[in-house]
Amino acid sequence: MTTAVDRVRAAYARIAQVDRPEVWIALRPQADTESDAAAVDAKVAAGDRLPLAGTVLAVKGNIDVAGLPTTAGCPAYAYEPDTDAPAVARLKAAGAVVLGTTNLDQFATGLVGTRSPYGAVRNALSPEHVSGGSSSGSAVAVALGIADIALGTDTAGSGRVPAAFNGIVGLKPTFGLIPTEGVVPACASLDCVTVFARTLSEAEQAMSLMAAPSGRALSAPAPRAPGPWRIAVPELGQLGRLDPGWAEAFEAAAQRLSDAGAELLPVDLAPFTEAAAMLYEGAFVAERYTAVGAFIDAHPGSPDLDPTVAGIISRAKDIPAHQLYADQQRLASLRIRALATLGDADALLLPTAPGHPTLTEVAADPLGVNARLGRFTNSTNLFDLAAVAVPAGDVNGLPFGVMLIGPAFTDERLARIAGLLDNPPLRLAVIGAHLSGQPLNGQLLAVGGRLVLTTATARAYRLYALDTLPPKPGLVRVGEDGGTIEAEVWQLPAEGLGVFLAALPRPMALGSVELADGSFVTGFLCEPQAVEGAREITSYGSWRAYLAALPRP
Amino acid sequence: MTTAVDRVRAAYARIAQVDRPEVWIALRPQADTESDAAAVDAKVAAGDRLPLAGTVLAVKGNIDVAGLPTTAGCPAYAYEPDTDAPAVARLKAAGAVVLGTTNLDQFATGLVGTRSPYGAVRNALSPEHVSGGSSSGSAVAVALGIADIALGTDTAGSGRVPAAFNGIVGLKPTFGLIPTEGVVPACASLDCVTVFARTLSEAEQAMSLMAAPSGRALSAPAPRAPGPWRIAVPELGQLGRLDPGWAEAFEAAAQRLSDAGAELLPVDLAPFTEAAAMLYEGAFVAERYTAVGAFIDAHPGSPDLDPTVAGIISRAKDIPAHQLYADQQRLASLRIRALATLGDADALLLPTAPGHPTLTEVAADPLGVNARLGRFTNSTNLFDLAAVAVPAGDVNGLPFGVMLIGPAFTDERLARIAGLLDNPPLRLAVIGAHLSGQPLNGQLLAVGGRLVLTTATARAYRLYALDTLPPKPGLVRVGEDGGTIEAEVWQLPAEGLGVFLAALPRPMALGSVELADGSFVTGFLCEPQAVEGAREITSYGSWRAYLAALPRP
Repeated sequence: MTTAVDRVRAAYARIAQVDRPEVWIALRPQADTESDAAAVDAKVAAGDRLPLAGTVLAVKGNIDVAGLPTTAGCPAYAYEPDTDAPAVARLKAAGAVVLGTTNLDQFATGLVGTRSPYGAVRNALSPEHVSGGSSSGSAVAVALGIADIALGTDTAGSGRVPAAFNGIVGLKPTFGLIPTEGVVPACASLDCVTVFARTLSEAEQAMSLMAAPSGRALSAPAPRAPGPWRIAVPELGQLGRLDPGWAEAFEAAAQRLSDAGAELLPVDLAPFTEAAAMLYEGAFVAERYTAVGAFIDAHPGSPDLDPTVAGIISRAKDIPAHQLYADQQRLASLRIRALATLGDADALLLPTAPGHPTLTEVAADPLGVNARLGRFTNSTNLFDLAAVAVPAGDVNGLPFGVMLIGPAFTDERLARIAGLLDNPPLRLAVIGAHLSGQPLNGQLLAVGGRLVLTTATARAYRLYALDTLPPKPGLVRVGEDGGTIEAEVWQLPAEGLGVFLAALPRPMALGSVELADGSFVTGFLCEPQAVEGAREITSYGSWRAYLAALPRP
Repeated sequence: MTTAVDRVRAAYARIAQVDRPEVWIALRPQADTESDAAAVDAKVAAGDRLPLAGTVLAVKGNIDVAGLPTTAGCPAYAYEPDTDAPAVARLKAAGAVVLGTTNLDQFATGLVGTRSPYGAVRNALSPEHVSGGSSSGSAVAVALGIADIALGTDTAGSGRVPAAFNGIVGLKPTFGLIPTEGVVPACASLDCVTVFARTLSEAEQAMSLMAAPSGRALSAPAPRAPGPWRIAVPELGQLGRLDPGWAEAFEAAAQRLSDAGAELLPVDLAPFTEAAAMLYEGAFVAERYTAVGAFIDAHPGSPDLDPTVAGIISRAKDIPAHQLYADQQRLASLRIRALATLGDADALLLPTAPGHPTLTEVAADPLGVNARLGRFTNSTNLFDLAAVAVPAGDVNGLPFGVMLIGPAFTDERLARIAGLLDNPPLRLAVIGAHLSGQPLNGQLLAVGGRLVLTTATARAYRLYALDTLPPKPGLVRVGEDGGTIEAEVWQLPAEGLGVFLAALPRPMALGSVELADGSFVTGFLCEPQAVEGAREITSYGSWRAYLAALPRP
């Protein structure tokens, strides 16, 4: 059994290996985290039930961790909190071990991951591309397999855009569900603590452990009309310019939901994109000045300030309150239009971002490129909605991500719908004891299998009668001297295939088997040793034919 | 791509193979179902979106299917409905093809599956054991892989006990969520249409397609306090006598939920078991007389009547109404006690049944054995609760099942919690390009992998440098002449392992690999052809050591 100490050690080994120092603002000494991990191991040994025992956690640099400086990405702003933010404290109480605080777009202002005096955070999978921000270091720490889960924040997409760019899950909960005490505000009326993880279930577990009544009273989602999931999907024309291949990837994600039984509904995206544009163009940016404007004004020209961020926030000083009233009125009417067009849809499906820029592209146009990235995320918080960002395949070798956005307090429903995008059913070719009517066929049924095709292998295999109980054949690829063997192709849920493989005894193995039509499918093979001295039965063309020819006892 | 016609043909082939004629009351001619399936295929070809296209459906014999007799398990009671029950009609509209109607405990009165003039339904996995009832044929049709989904009904456990006994999923929805028009009533104020499937997701999809506002107004579940799932788990002492090994299996299921992060809470089971006992002992059985008593009285001694069922219902004729009032008052106070002891728990975890009898045991004591089977299910409908029954492992070679029971309209939440029981994480041993720091390590991270152990294989393997891109080693078991090879053991979600396997290219394979400590774990092997002519590198003891010794280019 792996201990918390083992897992912490593996995390530091991974940090050394990946050479991405810009991920961290304050990485704790390994001795300190090992000591925390040892304490977790001791509690578990004493019988404590810790659901996150040994889970390795990274925390965005604008969230308080006792003993580490809270910087919000600005060295001069740093303070040393005495206590953990409640979100951090709850995860630690459940057994998580904090590795350190992560880099971010300064004052959580940006969606690129480059706006930090601690360095631009490079994408986990493609170092010339941006990580996305503002929760850049947290997302990359998870995507690189250093941390199991990481905390971010999301005011306009900061917990989702980096999830999409690094191929991981990001949960943007309903406003107020997770306390924001101990978090440096960006826009206090919109800020949410978010979670990154590599699987939905890990992210959801962390979220459930952090959630607690705070200022906002808990309320149930509106009763859902029965029927299949209803997903609002905008026309491609309303999405604006997307990176090459992204429109097709988005349509494929919608198709996946439809294939899983969801009903796709039309929606007018205009109120969402109009509200999104208001986030930096309108008066709402003044809330960032409320948070840190006085600090920025007191440090003119400081090298600790990111010039792009400082410029955005400083310029907000002179926005008049009457403009804020006007913008709030306009937002309220856009929100009414948005909810009306969603109707009784359970969720709105959108690409998480319209494209994925390189570091060079961001440097050439810091404001323009950043503004484009928020086209689909900016309106979520303004409209008091919840969102789940999940991977939805790759385009040109980079991750592509989508969001499911829905009403406040439908967080769990959104995660369930997002789960439909997780993994389509897989296929398995069987040639022996798992064929229909053979003794182990029930193993396929038990994991949700369904026969889809009876066919044969390519003419490239030899079949042997193995010395196993029950009797099984062994399939060996030999190339040109081979024969063709009857095969059934079964469809299994992805987890069913995993469970089936995990229970497979020696000498059987699963690999890639060529079928008669030249396609390849996961199928039965066996260890070479098993066929030594075994009778070759290729000429029967089928395990069933061989069995039928055996003398009856 | 498999067509609906292919799938229907496979179903009839399976029916012929399994030789369980007692499953069916009215099996449709294959030509008729193939014609229905061809119509579904034509709609799909024309662009119709049918979420259940080609799904093969079996329907319990007390639910109307136009063109087939509705028997409720009694030939003399049969009538030919003109229209499908709404539940059936909705599944057909979504593309499902009805195979026929299935056997049941007559008038849905029983939990054994033996009370039918159409024959006792034998268990799918162990023919000497009962199938469970009353939805016996539907459950066995799914468990044997004939039907993808099947409809049952549940008044006191009839949609759950057979799920448990046959190792499949059974959903007992909130009363009123699925219309019961076109269903022969057992107790009209308690009856629910249920779904059987081999996976939760298939069952949930069918349920969502059938649900629709009917007599009962749709209402949202009460807002759930944040935090981990809270699961009420009774002390073993309150469960009464269980079959050997079932207490341990029940505790293992509770532990699985706890391991997945759920909080386990104490609960007093007494109000549940007291209410359960009232179902046949008290006045509520009179509602069965209301439904079919006049018919039974008009056919005294008919061979079409099951004597046990007829006796139960006939005896209810003389129950006075004042006793019903008294029982209703007692039930109301038990329900208050039950909800109080559940407190803010999301669900109550219970074994689905206390044990699994043989056909012989039921024949020896038809009433006593049946009454025992309903100990945990009977109270659910009486208390207006919803339930999900799922498999939770095997005991002595037979399936063991548990239920999650919760408030009305928490159906989806219960299914999500039940999903935690689905599959624990699995392990994979890697020895080459997937090791930490090697080029394909990211594939493990992408499917949610986590390093748990660095170890080595047993001293029984040879390692070869294969001619692949990127370079990979091939591991071959040779037994005594072998060496030991460095290995990392990774933990992956079950579906992650399935996805990983499905993407594995030739000549790699996964099978069972022996580790240095003598344990076996799923791990990397390769096709025998790949090592022909390859350089043997066993003596390096590790792929990394071999790479380090290569001359630098």
